[in-house]
Amino acid sequence: MAARRGIGSMAQRTLMVLIDLDETLAAFEKHFVIKFREKYPNEPYIPVEKRNTFYIADQYDKLNFTDDSVRLELKKIYRSEHFFRDLPEIEGGCDAVKEMAEMEGVEVFICSSPLFQYKYSAPEKYEWVEKHLGPDWINRLILTRDKTMINGDILIDDKIHITGAMNNPSWKHVVFTAPNNQNMKVKGDKLRLNNWTDGTWRTMIEDFKKRL
Amino acid sequence: MAARRGIGSMAQRTLMVLIDLDETLAAFEKHFVIKFREKYPNEPYIPVEKRNTFYIADQYDKLNFTDDSVRLELKKIYRSEHFFRDLPEIEGGCDAVKEMAEMEGVEVFICSSPLFQYKYSAPEKYEWVEKHLGPDWINRLILTRDKTMINGDILIDDKIHITGAMNNPSWKHVVFTAPNNQNMKVKGDKLRLNNWTDGTWRTMIEDFKKRL
Ligand SMILES: [Mg+2]
Ligand SMILES: [Mg+2]
Repeated sequence: MAARRGIGSMAQRTLMVLIDLDETLAAFEKHFVIKFREKYPNEPYIPVEKRNTFYIADQYDKLNFTDDSVRLELKKIYRSEHFFRDLPEIEGGCDAVKEMAEMEGVEVFICSSPLFQYKYSAPEKYEWVEKHLGPDWINRLILTRDKTMINGDILIDDKIHITGAMNNPSWKHVVFTAPNNQNMKVKGDKLRLNNWTDGTWRTMIEDFKKRL
Repeated sequence: MAARRGIGSMAQRTLMVLIDLDETLAAFEKHFVIKFREKYPNEPYIPVEKRNTFYIADQYDKLNFTDDSVRLELKKIYRSEHFFRDLPEIEGGCDAVKEMAEMEGVEVFICSSPLFQYKYSAPEKYEWVEKHLGPDWINRLILTRDKTMINGDILIDDKIHITGAMNNPSWKHVVFTAPNNQNMKVKGDKLRLNNWTDGTWRTMIEDFKKRL
């Protein structure tokens, strides 16, 4: 018993990692542009690599549409049934998350903001997680429109400015590189993670573990 | 500017209150027994005031049903469409929550666990909050199956044992009295809140504010 308690108290604290869904694991932008072009084949659009605002509507608003209703109607694309369910994966993301969850001393939760128009987005985020990560991950999905309320050591998220009710969230923000933030300078002591494929995420997680 | 900063730094920190939905604000047990008796008028049932387990199925499992399939089928009642949407309010709860949110130095979030069978329960929790508290509260609803991951000073929740990935959650648990916990002794330094109607919640919140 004494030995077990000794080992226990020497053990490092668990690293709590929060991971965003849209544009960090699920390819929202890529899917949007496909659906947009299907619906409006004769209207101008913004290729994913040219996207430069967090909210899609802000940038599309500046395009010269032949039909002005497009400006108002385009939000219906991501508010409609099956949009969230059908999002493709960001390359390597789901495999990285599953591998990360298997690392010793690491716990992973998915932390996602549903649309204010929650009807499809809320349940379909559960569906997405169940399908792409597995049913156990239903227990690890947190839906919140305020991520400062969630406990963690790191939040990996493509949204560059994350604010909310807590002025000093417990997590350190790691900006996941996405079209909306690719040309922005990451300020303060934030880090960047450029992709899930070149293995840098492993080094980053190991570094965070050491600093606990 | 200097004066403003001075006032700012003297100001008390905000009290963050997390409030559970089922059986704290929404009358799950009352609604279940109505639906159960509608579906199985000739089967035995447990009146709300005799309920003594957290999970309904655990206590119903011990009843002598004339048809044994009831034991398996009863979960379908709360897994079915509109069950969560149609839950009545726990008396005084929604008014108390709205009043609490107006108190100076207090922020309130709703913190609820959807069923593992999330299909109806997840979106209908948003629907319930939108209907009974108002659309602004969509921004204050957090869905999570692990409440230890949520930041707050207090969690008002009828579930007597709340565990999860974090061994030491930031909140102090206030047990909201409900059928499932009415005869249990609240252990450690947990508090109890018996109802939303006798005004004791106000004193409790003021006490917590003083101790920040
Ligand atoms: Mg995102
Ligand atoms: Mg409850």
